[in-house]
Amino acid sequence: MEKSAIYHQPCSSYAYPYDKETMHLKVRSKKDDIQSVILVYGDPYENVKIGENYRWVSGRVEMKKSATTSLHDYWFIAVKPEHRRLQYAFVLTDSNGASVFYGDREFLPNDQVTFSVPDNFFKFPYIHEVDLFKTPEWVKSTVWYQIFPERFENGDPDRSPENVLPWGSKDPDRDDFFGGDIQGIINRLDYLKDLGISGIYLNPIFKSPTNHKYDTLDYYTVDPHFGDKETFRTLVQEAHKRGIRIMLDAVFNHIGSKSKQWQDVIENEQKSVYKNWFHIHSFPVRDGENGNFDGKPSLSFDAFGFTTTMPKLNTANPEVQNYLLDIATYWIREFDIDGWRLDVANEVDHAFWKKFHQAVLKEKEDLYIVGEIWHNAWNWLQGDEFHSVMNYPLTKSIINFFIEDKTDSSQLISSLNEHFMKYSQNVNEAAFNLLDSHDTARILTLAKGDAQKVKQALAFLFVHTGSPCIYYGTEVGLDGGNDPLCRKCMIWDEEKQDLDMLQFTKKLIKLRNDYHSILSQGSINWLDTNDSSKKVLHFSREIGNQSLIFIFNHGDKEASVSLKKDHSYTDIWNSKEIEMKKIDIPAQGFTVLKTES
Amino acid sequence: MEKSAIYHQPCSSYAYPYDKETMHLKVRSKKDDIQSVILVYGDPYENVKIGENYRWVSGRVEMKKSATTSLHDYWFIAVKPEHRRLQYAFVLTDSNGASVFYGDREFLPNDQVTFSVPDNFFKFPYIHEVDLFKTPEWVKSTVWYQIFPERFENGDPDRSPENVLPWGSKDPDRDDFFGGDIQGIINRLDYLKDLGISGIYLNPIFKSPTNHKYDTLDYYTVDPHFGDKETFRTLVQEAHKRGIRIMLDAVFNHIGSKSKQWQDVIENEQKSVYKNWFHIHSFPVRDGENGNFDGKPSLSFDAFGFTTTMPKLNTANPEVQNYLLDIATYWIREFDIDGWRLDVANEVDHAFWKKFHQAVLKEKEDLYIVGEIWHNAWNWLQGDEFHSVMNYPLTKSIINFFIEDKTDSSQLISSLNEHFMKYSQNVNEAAFNLLDSHDTARILTLAKGDAQKVKQALAFLFVHTGSPCIYYGTEVGLDGGNDPLCRKCMIWDEEKQDLDMLQFTKKLIKLRNDYHSILSQGSINWLDTNDSSKKVLHFSREIGNQSLIFIFNHGDKEASVSLKKDHSYTDIWNSKEIEMKKIDIPAQGFTVLKTES
Repeated sequence: MEKSAIYHQPCSSYAYPYDKETMHLKVRSKKDDIQSVILVYGDPYENVKIGENYRWVSGRVEMKKSATTSLHDYWFIAVKPEHRRLQYAFVLTDSNGASVFYGDREFLPNDQVTFSVPDNFFKFPYIHEVDLFKTPEWVKSTVWYQIFPERFENGDPDRSPENVLPWGSKDPDRDDFFGGDIQGIINRLDYLKDLGISGIYLNPIFKSPTNHKYDTLDYYTVDPHFGDKETFRTLVQEAHKRGIRIMLDAVFNHIGSKSKQWQDVIENEQKSVYKNWFHIHSFPVRDGENGNFDGKPSLSFDAFGFTTTMPKLNTANPEVQNYLLDIATYWIREFDIDGWRLDVANEVDHAFWKKFHQAVLKEKEDLYIVGEIWHNAWNWLQGDEFHSVMNYPLTKSIINFFIEDKTDSSQLISSLNEHFMKYSQNVNEAAFNLLDSHDTARILTLAKGDAQKVKQALAFLFVHTGSPCIYYGTEVGLDGGNDPLCRKCMIWDEEKQDLDMLQFTKKLIKLRNDYHSILSQGSINWLDTNDSSKKVLHFSREIGNQSLIFIFNHGDKEASVSLKKDHSYTDIWNSKEIEMKKIDIPAQGFTVLKTES
Repeated sequence: MEKSAIYHQPCSSYAYPYDKETMHLKVRSKKDDIQSVILVYGDPYENVKIGENYRWVSGRVEMKKSATTSLHDYWFIAVKPEHRRLQYAFVLTDSNGASVFYGDREFLPNDQVTFSVPDNFFKFPYIHEVDLFKTPEWVKSTVWYQIFPERFENGDPDRSPENVLPWGSKDPDRDDFFGGDIQGIINRLDYLKDLGISGIYLNPIFKSPTNHKYDTLDYYTVDPHFGDKETFRTLVQEAHKRGIRIMLDAVFNHIGSKSKQWQDVIENEQKSVYKNWFHIHSFPVRDGENGNFDGKPSLSFDAFGFTTTMPKLNTANPEVQNYLLDIATYWIREFDIDGWRLDVANEVDHAFWKKFHQAVLKEKEDLYIVGEIWHNAWNWLQGDEFHSVMNYPLTKSIINFFIEDKTDSSQLISSLNEHFMKYSQNVNEAAFNLLDSHDTARILTLAKGDAQKVKQALAFLFVHTGSPCIYYGTEVGLDGGNDPLCRKCMIWDEEKQDLDMLQFTKKLIKLRNDYHSILSQGSINWLDTNDSSKKVLHFSREIGNQSLIFIFNHGDKEASVSLKKDHSYTDIWNSKEIEMKKIDIPAQGFTVLKTES
């Protein structure tokens, strides 16, 4: 038994309350090393008197091997502790029949002496509802659509910047303006409703000199090239009428250098009333002096990266906190927005985000909070900061398999499981899943224009746990490499749209909407494929009595997959009954089956 | 290479800021499997242009194998990221020379392609001072003394309960009173000062019908058998004059059934204004009705364990929060106490403790917060709840080796290292270390009366990282089994005191006080013993240029330990120069050497 690989951490993604009465428990072991894991559990205080002695009242239940990666097996069980308190340990048995007790004092012999000492057991002391990881219920059934406002639609040419370029007249350079605005989004709400989406994530809309607006000048003003507060109010109201929620982008890590605060520091240096709003190491902070050259690590103040136009805010300063928290609640209070996406969320302090969490949820209890974090974000996903992060690790796994053919099916499954196991199920169910964004190359370009690959990747994204997001234009075949090319103007000319992709996307969104419960919350079970090429995926999603079967053939030959004999199947993607107990999927194809046993 | 055993978790005890400029990084591998670990690190945004390409600016540094357990090696390094941001990964090489890259996307080939992708690296996004784990500086140099007030000294017989028993006249039963009080403690402050201690941890002193007072009747009143507010104020003032700090015991998980709040519920049941102060499943809650039999799991309300006299408080109720937070700050504000020990801290919600943390530190910024948690408490030790917990896992490791001879030296070292590695160094330095308490059998009784064993165990406790606590009477040979026997009356009759143990304890406390910096914060390094019996411990503690050497011989024969040839040594425990390059330690003995290279 490879004990060095066995891992459990109490009060973590390995042991957490899923809801107010259910505990989820996991333990990890070396792949194929352990044959069975028994959970021994009970209330820490419940004993029965037997003769003159007291014996702890405990139950035993076998855990399920719920996920396997290239290195590990993960064992899972959900239990409901009657008194909300849990004392537990694992008994692991390997294929030779050797068994060991694993608890809070590490590995001990699987014997009566071990069991008689309460301190040998792990504890989850008490399930408190107030400490639960709670996510807005609506998120699980939402399909997101990300809009980069300057490039979606020019609905009010009078508001366009002086130097505006004709819509889609060229590939964008960093400083180009094409005149997209909020009226444009309002004008296209029926298009979005028809597409089937139910949430819009908007890149920043507050006043700023750039087209991306990540260098905010004034958080209380809608950028005049985008509209004004009334335009924005109309957008939210019209979206809500159509069942579409609105999430804004909060850039709180840094402020724009053109803001009054930073301009005051530039002007007054040490004497500025705003000097403690920033992280200033020495004065002056002016560009071109004292090491302050854009992009150089010699800056005399902290910035986003080494970008002089984005001085970092000191979010430990109560003045800054009050300023930002008022902004965060103002846009909820006055305009009824539904979510905040937090830019560079990982570089802002936890203490601030905890205050943010409390303030915005007090204003609107089902507001969704998504942090921009690209790496393992477990520390921000404990229930008191974010509901989710932008799920780029999932993006990467999907691209590696479906788009860039860098991995085979077993590597894909391993990386998906690995990532899934890092978080609690609550986190996974509210994940913000995406294939691309304003910060990456577009999926069609990564696929070198192969629309079929994009369809497979999109379909896989949509049937995965969490809520999926489409980056504007993907549905009509918009392409583009890294920033600024991923920010091209939306294609509205139907002759230039990929109408096949549009129909496909609508169909996919409908599938997601029809089965959102099973797709956002169901378990995932990887099934046999008999596929030596490792290009075929076969899995089920299950919740309660519902079950869907998915088969993706990413190979360049038709694949044949066997189905269980005692079930009947309907191909709900192609709307046909399955006659045989096997199904053939064309090269680069996929399908979805509904099954009843 | 046993990759399945390699572990790192970003933003955890494996990667944390030790102070505002220093990151501590750890990685775990299977014991003896890995030959070297290189940390590759740099600022995530710092790149240099080489030709047309940008290359990330990174450094490489070899990590030190800092701790070994029976299963694992732990590798450690401290680095100071210039811009407070850290992007990092590990390159692990095994004894065959095979190497692997380990980062945020798990294991990858150790090659240029891997290094070119920033997402492959772990991140610590930014060191925020506000998020640091900060402990009161004074704790590290404090030696604690725990007093169970009813049993320390009767200083005011007029206050004694009617049924008071003569001091020390019998072994205590559960409901006995002996008349110990606060005036008694005041009377003995000079004794404690002479002993050398610098902090008193007092078991509960608030009004309650029991001798232990864990079933609080009124948190705003000193129990009249113990004294009144003026007596307590005098205690704090007189203690502070002598450089002794006072920590009180806060029982916030539950309240006593005699409290006005619970009595109101008993009386008015559903109609009580306090019914939401508790976790009530169904009415009535009266004893002997509706399943409410003491000790039975059928209680119709949540309690501590199944104890009907200790109904659990609903700390998610803002009224309860305000009530308890006012109590917590009242005793600081009005009486200037220095610490709160939190009873059954693990069963109270995290949200409440975070508010508690903020409230009490706002009242007194260097107040010490110690939770009663017996198991792995990492989740309460993130910097925003407790500074420490009662370090019972350390207790158990010391007892297993020194008192009950259940483990050998390698097992002791393994368990110490295992436990040490679970937490950050900040947590370990502020640990509340103890051999026994009002909740355990006394150490002398566990040692079956063997005072020499107790001396060894005490000495080991005192030279360990963290701040040690003596349970009242240990210094004069007080014994006693489990509760209630561990709560005997203090021995004040010098003829009945173990005066040898008293002298020993004073000497040990003086050693601790003279070398508190190295003992609370220095590194620990386990050295060779050439001891096949595995009863000898040989280790150094080091900080800056200071170094102390410790040798404990727990065997029943004299042991000889070799010392480094190029150093000179002084035996500071026995005040003598060491002439030879080896030292003989008698059976069950120990010593402390000071060394200069």
